[in-house]
Amino acid sequence: MPGAIQPELELAASLFDALRSATRRGRGIVRDSYGAGEQAAHDLMRSAAERIGLEVSVDAIGNLFLTLPGRDRAAPRIIMGSHLDSVPQGGNFDGAAGVVAGLCLLSALRHAGVTPGCDLTVMAIRAEESAWFDIAYLGSAGAFGLLDPACLAIRRSDNGQTLEAALTACGFDPRPIRERRRLLDPARIRAYLELHIEQGPTLVANGLPAAVVSGIRGCKRFRNARCTGEYGHSGALARRYRRDAVAATVAFLHHMEKVWLAQEGSGADLVLTTGELYTDPLMHGPSKIAGETHFVLDLRSLSDATMEAVAAEARAAAARIGAEYRVDIDLGTTSDSPAAVMDGRLRSRLMSLLDRPFEMASGAGHDAAAFCKVGVPSAMIFVRNDRGSHNPDEGMALEDFAVGARALLELVREFPL
Amino acid sequence: MPGAIQPELELAASLFDALRSATRRGRGIVRDSYGAGEQAAHDLMRSAAERIGLEVSVDAIGNLFLTLPGRDRAAPRIIMGSHLDSVPQGGNFDGAAGVVAGLCLLSALRHAGVTPGCDLTVMAIRAEESAWFDIAYLGSAGAFGLLDPACLAIRRSDNGQTLEAALTACGFDPRPIRERRRLLDPARIRAYLELHIEQGPTLVANGLPAAVVSGIRGCKRFRNARCTGEYGHSGALARRYRRDAVAATVAFLHHMEKVWLAQEGSGADLVLTTGELYTDPLMHGPSKIAGETHFVLDLRSLSDATMEAVAAEARAAAARIGAEYRVDIDLGTTSDSPAAVMDGRLRSRLMSLLDRPFEMASGAGHDAAAFCKVGVPSAMIFVRNDRGSHNPDEGMALEDFAVGARALLELVREFPL
Repeated sequence: MPGAIQPELELAASLFDALRSATRRGRGIVRDSYGAGEQAAHDLMRSAAERIGLEVSVDAIGNLFLTLPGRDRAAPRIIMGSHLDSVPQGGNFDGAAGVVAGLCLLSALRHAGVTPGCDLTVMAIRAEESAWFDIAYLGSAGAFGLLDPACLAIRRSDNGQTLEAALTACGFDPRPIRERRRLLDPARIRAYLELHIEQGPTLVANGLPAAVVSGIRGCKRFRNARCTGEYGHSGALARRYRRDAVAATVAFLHHMEKVWLAQEGSGADLVLTTGELYTDPLMHGPSKIAGETHFVLDLRSLSDATMEAVAAEARAAAARIGAEYRVDIDLGTTSDSPAAVMDGRLRSRLMSLLDRPFEMASGAGHDAAAFCKVGVPSAMIFVRNDRGSHNPDEGMALEDFAVGARALLELVREFPL
Repeated sequence: MPGAIQPELELAASLFDALRSATRRGRGIVRDSYGAGEQAAHDLMRSAAERIGLEVSVDAIGNLFLTLPGRDRAAPRIIMGSHLDSVPQGGNFDGAAGVVAGLCLLSALRHAGVTPGCDLTVMAIRAEESAWFDIAYLGSAGAFGLLDPACLAIRRSDNGQTLEAALTACGFDPRPIRERRRLLDPARIRAYLELHIEQGPTLVANGLPAAVVSGIRGCKRFRNARCTGEYGHSGALARRYRRDAVAATVAFLHHMEKVWLAQEGSGADLVLTTGELYTDPLMHGPSKIAGETHFVLDLRSLSDATMEAVAAEARAAAARIGAEYRVDIDLGTTSDSPAAVMDGRLRSRLMSLLDRPFEMASGAGHDAAAFCKVGVPSAMIFVRNDRGSHNPDEGMALEDFAVGARALLELVREFPL
C-alpha cells in the first residue's frame, strides 16, 4: 500500500511561517493558553483545514478536530495531534509541529484521492503548557474528563484570570470540567500519534533527524524539601557541635547522585534534578552556619517502580543523614505524575519506518500521556531540534520534520496494522 | 606573692546589673558602636573607676583607660580589657565581661592596698562588633593606627550615618584614623589580657567553667563564589548533556568536607563553612536544571599555612570538578584576616592557674587580635556561656566568671614573670 504519496512540505513551511507571523511578540513566540495567541494559531489551522476540505469541529473546551473522513465512519478513528499553545517567549515548533504534520499528511492523502479505512483526525489541543495555568495537559486531560474540577479556580500566571473565566471569555464551557465529563470516548480512538520536537540535545548529539519515543517519563517531585538545623558562628562552633543545614543538604544530595549513578549502572531509566536550592536570605550570612535550606528533588523515570524505589531511598537517606548531621531533613510530600509507556506495536512499526532507527525516552510531558492514561494505543516521534526548547531559538530543520512526517504517513497508511 | 586577695564579685554583679538596666531595649541588649548604648556603658564604667579611685583618660577615638598606678610609672604597663559595644539585640556579657573583670581586680588590689610594679590599666574598647559599622576591631585597631582611612566613609547599618560623622557627633576626632596615627605605643605595653565569654558550646559540653585561648582563628573567605552552568529541562536532559550548577556545587562542597575531615585527621585546626548557598530565584524552577549557584566558602584556622593549603586545594578542586561537570566554578578572591596566636608564656602560666586546665581556639575575632598584630604579648581567658552569643539569651554564671577573673588576678600579680 505505501506508495509515492509524500507529506506536503510546502504547506508545512507556509503554515510555520504564518504561525510565526501571527504570534511573534518581540523576539519570541507567545501563544497564551486560552488567550489571543493560542486562538490565532487555532484560526490559522482551521482555515488551512477548510482549504484542504477537511471536516471541522470544536469541542466544549476548545480543542479543534480536523477530519479526513474514512470509508467506515463508524470505525474507531486515528487521531494525530499536539498542542498549539506555547510558553511565554517560546519557539515556533514546540507543539505546532505535530498539528502541522497531521495537516500536511491529510492534505497529501486528500490530493492523492486516498480515502482511508477509518476517519483520520488532526486534533489541535488546547493549553498543554503549564506556564499560563499551573497544570499540564489541560486540553487533552479535559477531553477525557481527567481534570480535578478545582483547577477551574487556577489563575493565569500573568494576569490573574481564572481558568473558568478564561474558558468563558473564549466562548467555551467549563461545565464538562466541573462535571468530570468525557468529551472523547477512548474506545472510539484506534490510536493517538504525536510528532513533537525533541526538547533536549540527544538527536543533535547523535546526528539523527528523528527518533521513536519509548515513553514519557513520569515525575515524582519533592517540591518543598527543607533541612532545619541551627544557625551558629562559623568560627566558634567545632564540627561536632554543628547542626549545619548546608553541610547536611550537600551530603544528602551527594548521596542521591550516587543513587542515580547506581540506578544508571543497573540499566534503569532515571534523571534526578535539584533545580532550586537556597539558604534563607533574611537569616543567612557569610560567617554564619546555615540553620535552614530549602530545595527541590525532582525524579523522573519511565518506570513508576524506579521512582518509588528512589523516593523510598531518598526518605531513608534523609533520616539517616539528618541524624548524622543533627538536623531535620523533611522531604515533604511528592507531587506525582505516572510514567506513560508508548504502545509496543506502534513503536516497533515506527522503528521499522526510520532509515536509522533510534528510540529514546521523553523527559518532558506531552499530550500523549493523557491518551495513554485512558488506554489509547499511543506513539510519538521526536524531531531533532537545535537549541533547546521553551525559548525563541528553537531550531527545527524542515528536512528533519519531513523524516518524522514521512514515518507518520506510512504508519497511518498501514492501518489497520 | 599571691595571697588572699580575690576579685570583687559583688562589684561585678552590680556592674552587670547596671549595664543591663541602662542598655536593655526590649528583650535584648543594644550598645550601638559610637552610639547612645555604647556611651551609656562607658559612662557606667567611668563612674565605677572614679569610685574606686582609678586614673581616667579617654583617647581621641573614645577608648577609655582606667588605671591603677604602679610603683614604676615609666615601666610598660599591663592592659586588661575588652569592648563595651554589643550587636543589636545582643547579650549582656559579650565584651563587657572583660572590662568588668578588670575593674573588679583593680578594685580588689586598691582596697587591699597593693601597689603593682607597673601601671595596671583597664581599657574599655570602642566598636569591636562589625554589626554597626561593617569593620571589626575599630577601637583597638584604630588605637594602633591599623585602620584604612577609607573606613571613615562606612555607613552605620541601621541609620546610614558615616563612621566619621558618628565619631564627630560623639566629640571624638577622626583625624588619627585618617592619618593612620598610633594612639598607643606597643612598646609601652607589657601584656594585653582579655577575659571574654566563649561564643560556642565547647565549655558547656566539657563541663568546664573557663579555658585558656590558644589563639584567634584567622579567616580566609571566598565571599562571592559562583558556579555557572546552563539552564535546561530537568526531564529532557540526560546526565551526559547536563551542565548542572547545583550538582557541581554539591560535588565541590562535598569534596571540601572531605578535605576538612582529612585536615582534622592530621591534627590541623580548621573549620569550614558554607553559610550562604543559593540558586537564582528569578531563573530557577522546580523542573529546570540550575544554570547558576552562588555560595560562600569560609575557612578558619589558627594556622595561616593551613588556610593557604586548603584554599589552594579548593581552587584545584573547583577547576577539576568544574571540568567534570562542564561548568565554571569561579571561587573569586578571598578576604583574609590572619590568625593571631596567643603568647606562649602567658598561655602556660594561665593554664597552671586553672584547677582544670583546658585550652581551645577562638573561632570568633577579638580585640586581642589587634594587640597580637602589633607584637604585644597577649592572652585570653574564655568563660563558659550557656546559650550562644550575639543573642539576648547569653548566659554566664558569676561563679564561672569568678574562675576566669581569679586566674587573671593571679597572672597580673605574678608580673614581671
